[in-house]
Amino acid sequence: MELTGKNYIGNTLSGKGGIFFKTINPIKNIENKTKFIEATEDEVKLAISLASESFNNYKEIPGIERSLFLKTIGDEIMKLGDDLIKIYCQESGLPEPRAIGERSRTINQLNLFANLIENEKWRENFIDIADPNRKPLPKPDLRKTSVALGPVVVFGASNFPLAFSTAGGDTASALACGCPVIVKSHPMHCGTSELISKAIINAIIKTKMPNGIFSNLNSKGFEVGQKLVMDSKIKAVGFTGSFKGGKFLFDMVSKRKEPIPFFAEMGSVNPIIILPSSIKEKSEDLVKNLIASISLGAGQFCTNPGIIFTIDDENTNNFITKIGDKIKDIQNQCMLHPNMKSNYENRSESIIKTKNVGSLKNEKLIPENNFVNTKIAIVSLNDFLENSELREEVFGPFSVIVKCKNLSELLSGLNKLSGQLTATIHSEKEDHNKINSIINILKNKVGRILFNDFPTGVEVSRSMTHGGPFPASTDSRYSSVGLESIKRWIRPISYQNFPEEFLPSFLK
Amino acid sequence: MELTGKNYIGNTLSGKGGIFFKTINPIKNIENKTKFIEATEDEVKLAISLASESFNNYKEIPGIERSLFLKTIGDEIMKLGDDLIKIYCQESGLPEPRAIGERSRTINQLNLFANLIENEKWRENFIDIADPNRKPLPKPDLRKTSVALGPVVVFGASNFPLAFSTAGGDTASALACGCPVIVKSHPMHCGTSELISKAIINAIIKTKMPNGIFSNLNSKGFEVGQKLVMDSKIKAVGFTGSFKGGKFLFDMVSKRKEPIPFFAEMGSVNPIIILPSSIKEKSEDLVKNLIASISLGAGQFCTNPGIIFTIDDENTNNFITKIGDKIKDIQNQCMLHPNMKSNYENRSESIIKTKNVGSLKNEKLIPENNFVNTKIAIVSLNDFLENSELREEVFGPFSVIVKCKNLSELLSGLNKLSGQLTATIHSEKEDHNKINSIINILKNKVGRILFNDFPTGVEVSRSMTHGGPFPASTDSRYSSVGLESIKRWIRPISYQNFPEEFLPSFLK
Repeated sequence: MELTGKNYIGNTLSGKGGIFFKTINPIKNIENKTKFIEATEDEVKLAISLASESFNNYKEIPGIERSLFLKTIGDEIMKLGDDLIKIYCQESGLPEPRAIGERSRTINQLNLFANLIENEKWRENFIDIADPNRKPLPKPDLRKTSVALGPVVVFGASNFPLAFSTAGGDTASALACGCPVIVKSHPMHCGTSELISKAIINAIIKTKMPNGIFSNLNSKGFEVGQKLVMDSKIKAVGFTGSFKGGKFLFDMVSKRKEPIPFFAEMGSVNPIIILPSSIKEKSEDLVKNLIASISLGAGQFCTNPGIIFTIDDENTNNFITKIGDKIKDIQNQCMLHPNMKSNYENRSESIIKTKNVGSLKNEKLIPENNFVNTKIAIVSLNDFLENSELREEVFGPFSVIVKCKNLSELLSGLNKLSGQLTATIHSEKEDHNKINSIINILKNKVGRILFNDFPTGVEVSRSMTHGGPFPASTDSRYSSVGLESIKRWIRPISYQNFPEEFLPSFLK
Repeated sequence: MELTGKNYIGNTLSGKGGIFFKTINPIKNIENKTKFIEATEDEVKLAISLASESFNNYKEIPGIERSLFLKTIGDEIMKLGDDLIKIYCQESGLPEPRAIGERSRTINQLNLFANLIENEKWRENFIDIADPNRKPLPKPDLRKTSVALGPVVVFGASNFPLAFSTAGGDTASALACGCPVIVKSHPMHCGTSELISKAIINAIIKTKMPNGIFSNLNSKGFEVGQKLVMDSKIKAVGFTGSFKGGKFLFDMVSKRKEPIPFFAEMGSVNPIIILPSSIKEKSEDLVKNLIASISLGAGQFCTNPGIIFTIDDENTNNFITKIGDKIKDIQNQCMLHPNMKSNYENRSESIIKTKNVGSLKNEKLIPENNFVNTKIAIVSLNDFLENSELREEVFGPFSVIVKCKNLSELLSGLNKLSGQLTATIHSEKEDHNKINSIINILKNKVGRILFNDFPTGVEVSRSMTHGGPFPASTDSRYSSVGLESIKRWIRPISYQNFPEEFLPSFLK
């Protein structure tokens, strides 16, 4: 399958612009061959007006038909076959099994939303019957349902070219409820995005969905994204990525004449609290699973554990030594992009070279090209409190062990944390008396709290919260993973004293 | 009962400031006697820190106890007896039956939320059980619930001194879910606010709720409100009032370092579409009910019908003549405040004196003091499309009749409308073929859509949506009336693989 490098403006490939860029193969550290063509202002406008025009029809299509459309996207993604896997690996440096796993996750997400919308119950329809005899005033017939907001712009994540990008959770949930979607494809994996877009367009044509409910625009810079989110026809925005990128877009959207929902999931440091009893009783398992979680996918997960709190006792140093030994088993891993590699090296080395900070890494492995090794910094609680750099996410296989003298120090460390996607407690019975004081603080800080587990798997289900207080997300009332994520793109509407013939079928 | 003019900082009356102001009796057009003392910076800070400190305890109090607290507020409001009704009427110029009715509504709202939170089902708890045998990965135990966001600032409405103010829907819903509330009392009815605050504080003491979960601050200017919403300990804001006030606060809140939910309900023009068949068959009833809805409470309702669309035929002029006759039965009514009266006169006269605009009013009634008469302007669709002033809310007993030549003109008029709280269709069988094209446009514009009814009653129930696309509200995904309004102040949290002993009782 040849890549064209063009944009999809609705169902049509279009490449009218004169600005070109290429993606990078981070493993070989060379450019991939396709020239991607940045969308022009006219192309952006056309994509928006197609989305806006198609909205009125698309939102009225029965759930059962939109459901078939979502399932067909999954089928069409599978039909891309090895080409998709090949391009995914070329553009991300991630291994083939990861590509295959992420493809499954993406299709599962599409199917979950497809099943959700087969009937119209997801709209949380509610009927209050009239009571003409109520005193002092008669009660009207009032029926509530949900409607889609309108065209949604989706910014995909660099670290999940499939599951959090072009046909990822944001797109799947928005298309599910009746919102057209315009994807601003991630410049690091425009080829993957083009292939996925082709699958979506194929599904649109096969299931006879309106032209314009999906567009895919290329751009290396900020302009295309900026034009999209500032347009009055755009009614919501979904973003997954860095704090810097998310906050930049948030501030821009805040300047719109008409405010719109903007949901950004911006990652976090996902603290893990390891109480002494866990170190005493489960040291081996803990070391193994902790290092696996920190280094998984070169640490390029938004739920990557970036801070590990311990309470110093006679077993702590031994535990840390074991971590140092274990780290030597971890091979160097390729990061997604040269920029990410250099950011990682700069940030991690800056921390490690700070006064009083210890470190663990495999000194023998010399990082080449975009490969990096897993590193751990070790600091006292005092240093952690005083140096805000230690509390900020380092994107990559890196974590900071914070040594606290006692529970009280630990709690003061937790109090200093900003909003997080997750926090995790490891404890055995002996320390269970400490748990409630820890939970009380964490509950105000996080979207998900785990026990004797690791945060780097994000289950797609109704009970999942993938979000959290700022800066983990821009609105802690929503989740970007799981069935609840559809709520970002819908609003309630009430029908009062309506004759049955004019009510939506699911309110009759 | 003597008014003190002081602020409630938690349970304590406090008046340390040196800036004073008085409320106005709009009927007599004189100042009321109590000197209200503007909250100082220290008082604002103390209220915020008390709210923040009390939050951790308050949110953990079982629903059944918070429920008793809300019911006790209602009891304590009733105990204020005639003093409350007297001060309410003195400060608003509204008649006694309205005061009594609004008090009932306020207490009903408190009781509705009290009933809602008696058990913890309102949290939408959801449990996904583990499946250790799932392939390729085991499924974790994942349980979701909702938690309160934190301290909420409430700005009450001038036009509902009870039901949308100090103990109104915003306060009731926030206290219900576990958020402390700081009310910035409306400067037009600080006395009413002081009495209601006293009732809330009495309920706090009687039901042993933590000191600090409620404060009431006086201020005539913007500074106190500004200090409140910009403080990092404040986690959400609720506002009911004008577009100007709401947008000012929204823009301020957008500049915070940490974004927080800001919900403003800012009113609208609530279009009514009257199709020819209704005029033909129900002219008498329509005229009577329409004028009643327009002039109700001197037109000072956010759901007041401000635009009436008609399709011109042989009966239209007769219908308009009847409206002109009916208007003469409406007595002059007192507006809430001299500023509102002068705004009303300026806006309504400016529209009526525009070229090509006809008008209906009782010329014989000379408005005195803060009394105004009901007025109707009449314009063609063309003038309506060209003059944006005609599409903006005039706060008071005023409405614009738009004469369209045909359905197509009517639809182009509807398309020109911005977001609305409500829209209403009046039609008999003969015109039912036009309804779907009208609904298709209105569905994108409004929070509530009515049929052969009038928008000026806002039922408090689960099916109510009181909100709508901007500028009717700042976030169309929420309602400020009804049980769903609690969702503005809560966020989801998930517990993964948690031992039962550390789960909240309602997730076990």
